[in-house]
Amino acid sequence: MEVEEEVRRIVEQVKELNDSATSFVSSSSHEELSLRKRSSLVDASITRLHSTLLSDKHHDPKLLDKAFFSSLSLLEEDLQRARCMLADGDTCSFLPSKPQGRFVRMFLGPLNVRASRKDIQLKVKEEYNSYRDRTALLFLVFPAILLTLRSYVWEGCLPAFPVQLYQAWLLFLYAGLAMRENILRANGSDIRSWWLYHHYCAMAMALVSLTWEIKGQPNCVQKQKGVRLFLQWAMMQGVAMLLQNRYQRQRLYTRIALGKAKRMDVVWGETAGVDGQLLLLCPILFTLQVLICGILLVVMAIGNFINTVETLMVKSRFKAKMKRSKSRAELD
Amino acid sequence: MEVEEEVRRIVEQVKELNDSATSFVSSSSHEELSLRKRSSLVDASITRLHSTLLSDKHHDPKLLDKAFFSSLSLLEEDLQRARCMLADGDTCSFLPSKPQGRFVRMFLGPLNVRASRKDIQLKVKEEYNSYRDRTALLFLVFPAILLTLRSYVWEGCLPAFPVQLYQAWLLFLYAGLAMRENILRANGSDIRSWWLYHHYCAMAMALVSLTWEIKGQPNCVQKQKGVRLFLQWAMMQGVAMLLQNRYQRQRLYTRIALGKAKRMDVVWGETAGVDGQLLLLCPILFTLQVLICGILLVVMAIGNFINTVETLMVKSRFKAKMKRSKSRAELD
Repeated sequence: MEVEEEVRRIVEQVKELNDSATSFVSSSSHEELSLRKRSSLVDASITRLHSTLLSDKHHDPKLLDKAFFSSLSLLEEDLQRARCMLADGDTCSFLPSKPQGRFVRMFLGPLNVRASRKDIQLKVKEEYNSYRDRTALLFLVFPAILLTLRSYVWEGCLPAFPVQLYQAWLLFLYAGLAMRENILRANGSDIRSWWLYHHYCAMAMALVSLTWEIKGQPNCVQKQKGVRLFLQWAMMQGVAMLLQNRYQRQRLYTRIALGKAKRMDVVWGETAGVDGQLLLLCPILFTLQVLICGILLVVMAIGNFINTVETLMVKSRFKAKMKRSKSRAELD
Repeated sequence: MEVEEEVRRIVEQVKELNDSATSFVSSSSHEELSLRKRSSLVDASITRLHSTLLSDKHHDPKLLDKAFFSSLSLLEEDLQRARCMLADGDTCSFLPSKPQGRFVRMFLGPLNVRASRKDIQLKVKEEYNSYRDRTALLFLVFPAILLTLRSYVWEGCLPAFPVQLYQAWLLFLYAGLAMRENILRANGSDIRSWWLYHHYCAMAMALVSLTWEIKGQPNCVQKQKGVRLFLQWAMMQGVAMLLQNRYQRQRLYTRIALGKAKRMDVVWGETAGVDGQLLLLCPILFTLQVLICGILLVVMAIGNFINTVETLMVKSRFKAKMKRSKSRAELD
């Protein structure tokens, strides 16, 4: 019987295929393990050497030979470049990774969210950036439409459903951002953990806002004052997000080109520097602070502020160091 | 200078490591591709052969030799077993997979959620089962506590916050289930797409319930009738979930042991069979139907019903076929 023969052949093929898959999996996992070991060794020695260099520099600067000091700075840069090379090459997937956060585990279970290839990691990052751009636009447009309709169609009184739809969208947006940022972190990005907490807070805020009762007539204008403020704040926030996204990404590309940042790094929370856009960004950021109401928003603002100041301080310290070593080199 | 020497050595090591990582990645992706091709070929021929067998059997049963017919059934079983072997072995990660749904893409971006090893896939499935068990318990306990406190502490009037907390938990629960089921599907589980839609509906329901206003005194008992019904329905649902989980899992283990199901298959939506627990399950499931209110709940119930009937029909057809071929074999 012909069919019988074919079934037998297929069963045979399945067995063969399983055998070759097993041998491939075991041999590749063996090689992977050895690459993983080597990577973590090199990574550890870079960290060790970096701290040696730092302690050499800080130990007693006055006793140091100036030429020696500046050469130390150059070595530090070399080391930083080596670290970027390590993280940006094919070695990336074998480097020791940060443990996956509780947030990811809660929603996805024990799934490993680390991409095995650099190109996939970069695709994840690109998608994150485009997600931020798209949503920043919606962040501006959605409340703008609501407020416009309120004035010209709804006669000063927002109906409950569109506002609640907007609040549900906010919840979805923040959950998506928090998830993507957790995944980026697991893939070796340097995103600050504050931004994750920020988005957890924002999720809580969106949930709370969903439980608000949207009151109607009579005295609608008076009763909906809070909702109106919230929507106006969101519009300002949308403009700020759009500007920040553009400005920060330009700076990041420069840093990556200079070998000072890894390709997986992202741009949240880096607002230092002077630029044309910054002149526009500053007043908007300050006006936003005035409008913020509610404990959650205040907490988030304080956190953002501390974070930005920290980033600024790290940078100015670095610049001062560079200047000092440069002037010493020139004196010599 | 000693440090300089060390930095140079490390830069050298990083380059070497990157080179070996690159060669490993390219060679293993080459092998992977060939395994992937072979797997999809074998998979396609299994599907083709299966449909040949089916058309042979259905074409004109009266003309068929009885011995031939029963041998066809045996071949069909062999083929099914081969398919399970293919999906349960190390070949699993090389089989063509279903495209990842929009839901996963919306929250995670373009990340590949397919586990590369069978043991990780099985861990994902186990965690999904334990998640269902844990949450089914909470599904029962959470509203039970609320209703008990309402009667003995809150004097018949539920405060808004705990109820809203419960509704937010429901949203989180359904999102987690939907996410995990999407991931299971991408990893080769046979979970029916209805259960995914069911959980999207449930998420929408939880969101809508969050916007409910929880009214208080006076006339609290009258005003909170809907909320009370909702909580009572949830308790019944919790009991049903606990029973179903236990009952279905026992049946699944039997099916896996017989080689009739893959190890990645799950137990949702399989309620056929006669068992002691089923006697308890049936009245609960029917009482639940009575209590269900709101369009979303009705939609979900209809969907569940159609799904279960479909499963039952597939099974009874299969059993009838088996019986027929058996009796024919005996007649011979």
